[in-house]
Amino acid sequence: LSKRLGVELTIASETFQHTGSFKFRAAYNVASKISERKIIAASSGNFGQAMAYACSLLDKTCIIVMPSTSAQVKIDAVREYGGTADLTDVRVKGRAARVAELARDHRDAYIASAYDDPLVIEGNATLGIELAESGREFDYVVAPIGGGGLSSGIITGLKERGSNANVVAAEPSMANDAARSLRAGHIVVNDTEPQTIADGARTVSVGVNNWAVLKDGLSSVVEVAEEKIKEGVRLLFSLANIKAEPTGALPIGALLTAPHLFHGQRVCCVVSGGNVDPEVYRMILSA
Amino acid sequence: LSKRLGVELTIASETFQHTGSFKFRAAYNVASKISERKIIAASSGNFGQAMAYACSLLDKTCIIVMPSTSAQVKIDAVREYGGTADLTDVRVKGRAARVAELARDHRDAYIASAYDDPLVIEGNATLGIELAESGREFDYVVAPIGGGGLSSGIITGLKERGSNANVVAAEPSMANDAARSLRAGHIVVNDTEPQTIADGARTVSVGVNNWAVLKDGLSSVVEVAEEKIKEGVRLLFSLANIKAEPTGALPIGALLTAPHLFHGQRVCCVVSGGNVDPEVYRMILSA
Repeated sequence: LSKRLGVELTIASETFQHTGSFKFRAAYNVASKISERKIIAASSGNFGQAMAYACSLLDKTCIIVMPSTSAQVKIDAVREYGGTADLTDVRVKGRAARVAELARDHRDAYIASAYDDPLVIEGNATLGIELAESGREFDYVVAPIGGGGLSSGIITGLKERGSNANVVAAEPSMANDAARSLRAGHIVVNDTEPQTIADGARTVSVGVNNWAVLKDGLSSVVEVAEEKIKEGVRLLFSLANIKAEPTGALPIGALLTAPHLFHGQRVCCVVSGGNVDPEVYRMILSA
Repeated sequence: LSKRLGVELTIASETFQHTGSFKFRAAYNVASKISERKIIAASSGNFGQAMAYACSLLDKTCIIVMPSTSAQVKIDAVREYGGTADLTDVRVKGRAARVAELARDHRDAYIASAYDDPLVIEGNATLGIELAESGREFDYVVAPIGGGGLSSGIITGLKERGSNANVVAAEPSMANDAARSLRAGHIVVNDTEPQTIADGARTVSVGVNNWAVLKDGLSSVVEVAEEKIKEGVRLLFSLANIKAEPTGALPIGALLTAPHLFHGQRVCCVVSGGNVDPEVYRMILSA
């Protein structure tokens, strides 16, 4: 895969993290540091199952608001870990609106953002710390961006440990609010939740807490076409034996999209998760 | 996956080994310890690419005799690593016969068996040593069996480090020569190479060197139906985010086949490799 991509590649795979994605880092940090026993969160899936598992470990409960279009495997996982999956048609009612409704009914609950929370950034910073302490030097660390929780966490963790690696965000072209935000110098919001195949990046904007870190901490954003995301999934399958979900393949898609930026460099691609419906995966492999 | 299988499960994944399967352990050991500069070997694929890569590291050359029905990805890999892939229709001429032909033409070459060689057992023993030194205790270590190189290596390595784990071989029912050999008390040979989906187990019999270790060292053989092999691949995909080749999923298939044998035990499943054609993988996921 290194040879194919023309870089000195390291893959930081979160596909074997608890619940199969990096989201457990943040979910556990949030659930363990708040005093509330009940948590309400909006999530396209991975944060939901991570929070459900974290709550099961901590003997807390949670309600996860999910788009009804979420991967079935992610809905099932939330329920398996003992969480309540609250399915919402996001074309009719935004997830934030549904969370607000639930918050009125559960006044004792903590409303957890999947990304826009200092505790989320702190949880995800553990990955930046691990990369800084891995014994490898990186010119670039490339991570998927949706709400910005992962990339702001990585930036924070790397900085905390004195790493000079440039952090690049890989974003679906059809959900390019982070790229537009960086160009505009302020947070730009998508009108609706973009239906990119990278379902972990279907956020309308980055979070305020994340933006505070990203606006100066991010080296650049590479906008990745849907086809390149899928090609990333296929390359991870064929040349690295890694089962990645589409969002997790965004960094490989970024290397395919901007090869000149990374050529010959020491690049760490963060494969953020591996949870993908078999049917979606089959469709991607067939192309 | 532990919960689903009813055991305390550890997965020893060789899918991220050099060239994507355990075969590199043996190939490198052979290629580095012989004096010959040229190697001829028969392989359904994984040993071939492992040997080609080992030779490239050691500045040696190799010819790999492969069934023309081998996974395309494995043929390509042998060539990519600089090896010569010699494709043979095994229904017309056995691989052993083709190797003998080539041996006559290349008298300076070492004829490497993919399994029946003390150097192969020694190489694979490194996995048994790693399991013994992993800090975990196992009641059972379950490994796929074809020629017997892996299981005899694991038995040797475990014994060398004083482990008392029982080693169970997982074998395709339609290629059950090892099971029949254990029942008969001597090596039993299949008439032809069985066309199981577990292409790493398409051997006609276990090797003589392997049998010497297996006949007393193996706890039992579980015969796994094709459907259970595929279910093993799907479970590794869905519940462990592991991309396994069918042969690598044999141990999970064995747990599905003989649940009473393993229930509640500390079981280590060796996922021997991850190299599988996308089309085969898609077919398995669709069921």
